[in-house]
Amino acid sequence: MIRVGVFGATGYAGYELVQILRRHPSAELVFATSEQSAGGCLGDTYPCPDDIPLVRAEDAPLDKVDCVFCSLPHGASMATVCRARRAGVRVVDLSADFRLPDPAVYQRWYKVAHEAPQLLAEAVYGLPELHRREIRHAQLVANPGCYPTSVILGCYPLAARGLLASERIIVDAKSGVSGAGRSLSLTTHFCEANENLSPYNIGHVHRHIPEMEQELSAAAGRPLRVTFAPHLVPVNRGMISTLYVTVPPEHDAASLRRLYHDVYAAEPLVHVLPEGKVATMRWAEGTDRCVISLHDAGAPGEVIVVSAIDNLGKGAAGQAVQNMNVMFGLKETVGLRV
Amino acid sequence: MIRVGVFGATGYAGYELVQILRRHPSAELVFATSEQSAGGCLGDTYPCPDDIPLVRAEDAPLDKVDCVFCSLPHGASMATVCRARRAGVRVVDLSADFRLPDPAVYQRWYKVAHEAPQLLAEAVYGLPELHRREIRHAQLVANPGCYPTSVILGCYPLAARGLLASERIIVDAKSGVSGAGRSLSLTTHFCEANENLSPYNIGHVHRHIPEMEQELSAAAGRPLRVTFAPHLVPVNRGMISTLYVTVPPEHDAASLRRLYHDVYAAEPLVHVLPEGKVATMRWAEGTDRCVISLHDAGAPGEVIVVSAIDNLGKGAAGQAVQNMNVMFGLKETVGLRV
Amino acid sequence: MIRVGVFGATGYAGYELVQILRRHPSAELVFATSEQSAGGCLGDTYPCPDDIPLVRAEDAPLDKVDCVFCSLPHGASMATVCRARRAGVRVVDLSADFRLPDPAVYQRWYKVAHEAPQLLAEAVYGLPELHRREIRHAQLVANPGCYPTSVILGCYPLAARGLLASERIIVDAKSGVSGAGRSLSLTTHFCEANENLSPYNIGHVHRHIPEMEQELSAAAGRPLRVTFAPHLVPVNRGMISTLYVTVPPEHDAASLRRLYHDVYAAEPLVHVLPEGKVATMRWAEGTDRCVISLHDAGAPGEVIVVSAIDNLGKGAAGQAVQNMNVMFGLKETVGLRV
Amino acid sequence: MIRVGVFGATGYAGYELVQILRRHPSAELVFATSEQSAGGCLGDTYPCPDDIPLVRAEDAPLDKVDCVFCSLPHGASMATVCRARRAGVRVVDLSADFRLPDPAVYQRWYKVAHEAPQLLAEAVYGLPELHRREIRHAQLVANPGCYPTSVILGCYPLAARGLLASERIIVDAKSGVSGAGRSLSLTTHFCEANENLSPYNIGHVHRHIPEMEQELSAAAGRPLRVTFAPHLVPVNRGMISTLYVTVPPEHDAASLRRLYHDVYAAEPLVHVLPEGKVATMRWAEGTDRCVISLHDAGAPGEVIVVSAIDNLGKGAAGQAVQNMNVMFGLKETVGLRV
Repeated sequence: MIRVGVFGATGYAGYELVQILRRHPSAELVFATSEQSAGGCLGDTYPCPDDIPLVRAEDAPLDKVDCVFCSLPHGASMATVCRARRAGVRVVDLSADFRLPDPAVYQRWYKVAHEAPQLLAEAVYGLPELHRREIRHAQLVANPGCYPTSVILGCYPLAARGLLASERIIVDAKSGVSGAGRSLSLTTHFCEANENLSPYNIGHVHRHIPEMEQELSAAAGRPLRVTFAPHLVPVNRGMISTLYVTVPPEHDAASLRRLYHDVYAAEPLVHVLPEGKVATMRWAEGTDRCVISLHDAGAPGEVIVVSAIDNLGKGAAGQAVQNMNVMFGLKETVGLRV
Repeated sequence: MIRVGVFGATGYAGYELVQILRRHPSAELVFATSEQSAGGCLGDTYPCPDDIPLVRAEDAPLDKVDCVFCSLPHGASMATVCRARRAGVRVVDLSADFRLPDPAVYQRWYKVAHEAPQLLAEAVYGLPELHRREIRHAQLVANPGCYPTSVILGCYPLAARGLLASERIIVDAKSGVSGAGRSLSLTTHFCEANENLSPYNIGHVHRHIPEMEQELSAAAGRPLRVTFAPHLVPVNRGMISTLYVTVPPEHDAASLRRLYHDVYAAEPLVHVLPEGKVATMRWAEGTDRCVISLHDAGAPGEVIVVSAIDNLGKGAAGQAVQNMNVMFGLKETVGLRV
Repeated sequence: MIRVGVFGATGYAGYELVQILRRHPSAELVFATSEQSAGGCLGDTYPCPDDIPLVRAEDAPLDKVDCVFCSLPHGASMATVCRARRAGVRVVDLSADFRLPDPAVYQRWYKVAHEAPQLLAEAVYGLPELHRREIRHAQLVANPGCYPTSVILGCYPLAARGLLASERIIVDAKSGVSGAGRSLSLTTHFCEANENLSPYNIGHVHRHIPEMEQELSAAAGRPLRVTFAPHLVPVNRGMISTLYVTVPPEHDAASLRRLYHDVYAAEPLVHVLPEGKVATMRWAEGTDRCVISLHDAGAPGEVIVVSAIDNLGKGAAGQAVQNMNVMFGLKETVGLRV
Repeated sequence: MIRVGVFGATGYAGYELVQILRRHPSAELVFATSEQSAGGCLGDTYPCPDDIPLVRAEDAPLDKVDCVFCSLPHGASMATVCRARRAGVRVVDLSADFRLPDPAVYQRWYKVAHEAPQLLAEAVYGLPELHRREIRHAQLVANPGCYPTSVILGCYPLAARGLLASERIIVDAKSGVSGAGRSLSLTTHFCEANENLSPYNIGHVHRHIPEMEQELSAAAGRPLRVTFAPHLVPVNRGMISTLYVTVPPEHDAASLRRLYHDVYAAEPLVHVLPEGKVATMRWAEGTDRCVISLHDAGAPGEVIVVSAIDNLGKGAAGQAVQNMNVMFGLKETVGLRV
């Protein structure tokens, strides 16, 4: 039994984590933290009968756990990760704090200085489909962002096989509102988001871009750049990334579909759709899988990839538990919604 | 007072038309047709107190009207348009039947032979911002599709000024469900569309593509092609087209914004947003305008245009009435929701 | 032309008011206020091209208007209403501050002392269907709450004709989220309200109860009491009140339907549905009317009344403009969505 | 391992059943039927990777299963249940066909003659909280309807303890759209149901009424009658029943809350909320529990009970599996979402 703790249990990702962990046959939830709701229990902040007590992060018994999940905002996560690592506890960090090895890059995109640069070297980017081997032995896993998960899995076979004919990848992404968190803002007010669809942070400004470019460039062995236009969609959970890519003209959706099937053949949480089917949000809703479909764009070498995840599943909590499973030698899908 | 008739009043676009016409100070609704609901009144098919009687198309008194709107399915519209034209009545046709001058192109995309090719020559593509002059005197106006309206208005200034550096335009479009019509299908079943987002007809297969390419190519004076990926969004009405375009590197969103302001300066139903604002569905919901915002995509010459309309407003019924206003010499926005 | 001002133009009801007034042929909007957004224009706070400037309430030129609408929170409205009345301006107050003639009752329900009790005597409860005559000459009209509008109109014919066999009326009400206002709260966070339905303030605790009891008791000539259970529904706008009433056993839905048709025969904004139709939110969405249907409940004398309004239309801004129309001798439906 | 079959696997309840059974540690899905999709697999009709083959009902291998679930329309279910019983297989029937012991009552409400009246005597009404003992040994369990489940559990303690002061119970119920099934109808078209709320079958006409009255009357030992007003709500899944009941005046919500806690103390799938909390759809969404809250209605003896379930969970598939668990001596919550 792996003894685990969750820092930041009352955000949407943290709550989802707790729900997965409660049903996980090999994990035991030892503590859950919340600064705002400490002293109460999870059932006070969410409409659920959970009587899991919430403690302040500083009161979390790090000596009683094997692994912690940090589901804290970027910037705030670093200090807690440091504490956990000093206590010898393995960490899956869901924030962005350890996804970018270069602290200068981190600072440029996140506008805060990195406070634990010494830990960056040991951090492993937690996309098991790309880095399973390193994750196995990692002490600190940086769980990818939701957008990067969908984009990287959607492009990885092309990058890794040298099939991207252009250095530029255009990503038109659509996210459910839970991706914006549980904090209050006019953007997430029901009447503003409902019956609406809003592009935001369009172009090359969203903070998830460096992750995408880092991983895809590494896979390709050359710099790639991502044009990224995220859109807020009036659903609670779900994410679609529609990728416009260029490949050598002898390739088409059919041949690439075979390639994807091949690359992901052993992956239990990546599902490549057959011809004639399209990945939709529903394909991934409430699951921890990524679902991909490929389509001809109309001219030789022009292809569209659709990549769907649940932003709280494979895009956050589900992937975090997948990482834990890998780190602790469990079957990778234990406790997950395949 | 313009005496008008509506063929196909019980579809979503037809019903919207009737609602606009009821409040139009210079139009008088003389008849409304419905094959399925003939004999009853509009209030029998929609939850509204409208006691407008519905007659069968064949019983429509064409001799009592100056203008008819045909809001019938493509293929079915041709015959009715012919009848109306033979009766000397001016027509705004909301179907696709008269948008493509070449009957062979029509047949290739719509899989039916054109039954009234003799009328194609007189048909004017009803986008007033491009063809106002011809519309004024037109006897037959082919009201554009919803997707083409948003895409063409979003790209037209670039095409017309020769600023498209690539022949390819990538369009990622998102439409509310009313765009799929009131007919029953699993796709539009509430539980299937709700909490979902579905790409469909991706690539170069959607029937609205030839219109887009025709109008933009004509404006550019050279062949352009559109990669088109529409997505079904769980809202009743609204449409966003996110356009990925390449322009000469000395241009950017700021300079193009000035251009768009310039090109559309006199247009009452096109609204170009200032820097810092993004076009969302809400900007156009329940209106008859098109709202456009421009954004840098991250590298010189790479720009993203967002174009928002209400698919039933500027995308269908609103534009149809705008065309009528132009045809009959009225102020263009009379009766419309600016 | 009636010169009008709007206090509190950036809440949902205030914004709706401005939209109605912009299209009103006999009203001219002279000023609109907002404390938070003063200095900017309405288009800065809402996705709309409105360039109506926003001023602080204290800077509103009361000498330039004939009528003001106060769309401010209860408690905050009183002072502004006083100022306007001192300036000799007629007022339609959308808050609760002048709906209850007895300041002690006001204080008991709203937990604040009334600061302008001297104005209570002149205030007229602004439900034109009940108080049209007094509204005509009123200097201060207290626009009803949304729930009371639907409930009172739904019950009034029974109360007025002495047909309520029990002193108790059970009201199960359902409201769209805009009824909760534009302020931020977890309740109105998209992810909390969406795919959810929440009863709240159940029993005899909601502040709209005294209005309902006051008006219905007055109509009946004896004390009536309302059991009231409101529910928050995941739609932007709309309201259904389902009323469970007991009438003398010789009456049924059919006979009462005739009565309602009779009582409301001359009312342009109350629509009683024929047998076989049920009032739904859609019947009233985007309109300024109230739609009522009547149904047998299964035993003699047991009847269910369904009353539907748009909470921002007949439930707030639409009714406020209806009141203005009455006050200034205009046709009652001018500018409204019948 | 219990070998099970599912008749009617492609409706919403049937699909939910299959999803629960797939994760059930003690059940093995042997077959799933679908008349329309026979020959394909479940993943052809739902966006999921399920490769469970679908066979026609007549080809279902009844000799290979211990238990079948019939998730067929009423009327159609009877014949299949007969076949299964003749084959000696235990049955959980999700239709209404075996819920009413008197075939004449069945025929009156469902407008078809009962074809298997001989099986009615052995059928047990499958609400484990009321009939657990009989279910244990039952060969044929009639799984309750969704509305009756929420209403009966919400009232049962009052009925059983003789605390209903009136023979009449008023139920205002709200259901998600999946309750209307996956068949196509205008009512469930996205654009009609979305941004709407529709009462339907109001009064004493809904077919779920006789179940409610039967069970509550039996518990009370005297005839009770239910006034029932269901409303369609724009959410995929979820159900709230708001019950207006009268109890002896010495009782109030607080004392009844203690009673409910007492009555349901040992029930793993009924959750009674403490004072200050209200049952919402979210409390039950995606779970197999029923959540109940109690509230004073404003006068002595007047109480409101709110009862929430997921219409596909405790309201259909979850309860069906709960029944199977009871029938086969398993822990009652195995495989369920507590």
